[in-house]
Amino acid sequence: MPPRDTASTSPTREAASPQARPRHRATLKDVARLAGVSPMTVSNVVNGTLRGYNEETRDRVLQAVERANYRPDIAARSLRTDRRMAVGMLVVQNGRRFLADPYITSLIDGLCAGLNQRGYSLVLQGLHVDDLASASLIQQLQTDGLCVLMSGNFMANTAFRGTLKAMGQPIVMFQQPEPDPEGDICSLRQDDFEGGRGVCEHLVQRGARHIVAIVPELDWPAMQARVAGARSFIETSRTRSKLTVLTSTDESASATQGALEGFIASNAQFDAIFAGNDQMAIAAHRLLTRRQVRIPEDVMVAGFNGLEFIDYFGTRLTTVRSPAFELGQLGAYHMVKRIETGSFDTRAITLPTALMIGTTS
Amino acid sequence: MPPRDTASTSPTREAASPQARPRHRATLKDVARLAGVSPMTVSNVVNGTLRGYNEETRDRVLQAVERANYRPDIAARSLRTDRRMAVGMLVVQNGRRFLADPYITSLIDGLCAGLNQRGYSLVLQGLHVDDLASASLIQQLQTDGLCVLMSGNFMANTAFRGTLKAMGQPIVMFQQPEPDPEGDICSLRQDDFEGGRGVCEHLVQRGARHIVAIVPELDWPAMQARVAGARSFIETSRTRSKLTVLTSTDESASATQGALEGFIASNAQFDAIFAGNDQMAIAAHRLLTRRQVRIPEDVMVAGFNGLEFIDYFGTRLTTVRSPAFELGQLGAYHMVKRIETGSFDTRAITLPTALMIGTTS
Repeated sequence: MPPRDTASTSPTREAASPQARPRHRATLKDVARLAGVSPMTVSNVVNGTLRGYNEETRDRVLQAVERANYRPDIAARSLRTDRRMAVGMLVVQNGRRFLADPYITSLIDGLCAGLNQRGYSLVLQGLHVDDLASASLIQQLQTDGLCVLMSGNFMANTAFRGTLKAMGQPIVMFQQPEPDPEGDICSLRQDDFEGGRGVCEHLVQRGARHIVAIVPELDWPAMQARVAGARSFIETSRTRSKLTVLTSTDESASATQGALEGFIASNAQFDAIFAGNDQMAIAAHRLLTRRQVRIPEDVMVAGFNGLEFIDYFGTRLTTVRSPAFELGQLGAYHMVKRIETGSFDTRAITLPTALMIGTTS
Repeated sequence: MPPRDTASTSPTREAASPQARPRHRATLKDVARLAGVSPMTVSNVVNGTLRGYNEETRDRVLQAVERANYRPDIAARSLRTDRRMAVGMLVVQNGRRFLADPYITSLIDGLCAGLNQRGYSLVLQGLHVDDLASASLIQQLQTDGLCVLMSGNFMANTAFRGTLKAMGQPIVMFQQPEPDPEGDICSLRQDDFEGGRGVCEHLVQRGARHIVAIVPELDWPAMQARVAGARSFIETSRTRSKLTVLTSTDESASATQGALEGFIASNAQFDAIFAGNDQMAIAAHRLLTRRQVRIPEDVMVAGFNGLEFIDYFGTRLTTVRSPAFELGQLGAYHMVKRIETGSFDTRAITLPTALMIGTTS
């Protein structure tokens, strides 16, 4: 048997064995020849414009697609058009399970819905804070743009900033301070400051004289803005109420309750708790209830975010609604617009938050 | 000025304006020339092997990367290696917000962690059930394999099966009956049947004479398996207890409570509720508590899934733990192995579920 020309190798023989990997990528023409139809018919069937063909033709094409191991040549097309039709979402976290946080889930949900609606895919990438410096994973993303959400102040990390820059892609940054105005970056935030201010004003109006704000130690701009807003109200209004900021090692129920137990043991008097998020507010509520403290009569409790899961908590918590889903949607809108027009038409957007008054204040 | 040779066009002039898009893709050599370093140095900086270079060299390279609008040529590399280093996850849902379901979130979390750990990205795609037939979005996924999770029995949809097949990619199918043994498919499930059987046995052992199973109308194999398991226990054990299956229009709290109200209004006597998931169990628990029914003395309540959010429900619910995160991790493991070896080494895996006894039974 004469040696075969590799350039014209028929992929069908090899594809017959599921183990074998064909040496060249089958083309539309290969499939058409196998199915005994025109390349146009193959294209129509493969691209989902199935109407107008009878079952038999379609089956024949699909069988040929399988035998030839044909894959629509999107990588080649994207080299030509310079468009991947995909946007990356990088979630930088301290923990291992980055989707465990309901705020992040809700934001990604909005982002994915917004991208899919415009024909773009979402490439999701969780990254532990320790892997920031190498971050070689980021560079493998085949995307037209990159969204970044960080639970922490990781932009201080020089190597990480360098890696992001080296991507050469437009960036939508969620919940971080406004970045370098020179960069190809759009910054999307919610008004955490105003949210914190508003909830503090509400607690003072309801009679709070000493508010304890409890937040995780984590150096996260969004969390700090909530506390700064509360402090700003205390300092700029003519109230005689005061604010104490308490930090817990993290945002878990046990850490929150531990920090609060320590504060209570110091014999401090307080009549309101403003927690950095609802998980922490619920943990505080449970600790106080266990200690026979009446809520809101003895101590008022307020949280932050107002996401759906708080419905499972029996009591209607006073909180601040975070527009996490909407931030994600907006990120999709501006990213796609940037990809398609070549520039962001805005560099920074802040969405409002809203006070939700429950039965705990 | 003589016309320039397009092949040697310097991209720097065009890249200076943020609006302009360079006509050719800058290469490693272009960047090296601009930065006055070797291509190897550029490669090292860009690929995150930053050690060994001083700040000044790195900055010079990164500036050149930006000026040249250089992007590592992954699309070209993947054409050569036939590997995208990305796996798609298709979530087919009835609702609009597909990440709102905590089971799905948990599974995707495990899948993403498992893929990232092995150097693969996750491409996430939500798809409404009405868009199944066209599903042109699926075909744009630039992936080495496709994972599919459907909240419904959508495999009955012929056009959708055809579209999946035409992808020509290995498939990991979550929570569906074992598929066509001919396909390049691995089926990963949890033991919903045994979970349903176990919870039913537990309720009967605790004295239940009439168990009401409440599930959404949705034709979803996993949900049906839970009920089938419960029914199997009633039929095969020598118990005189009985089981009634009640359906609600969907799994929302209002639909669950509506269906249960209707059943109660019919004067039916029952002493246990087995809900298809924990959201429904919590809704039932609240309705009964509002009606002064004592739990578990008058009526026992059990759910399914045991995901983290039930911690926010004050009462420790009896439920069945679903290994959603582990299913996702396992999916990543088998998908990557399939991509790298050319075949799945197993076609079907079922993970066990586990009864978690709380204070509601």
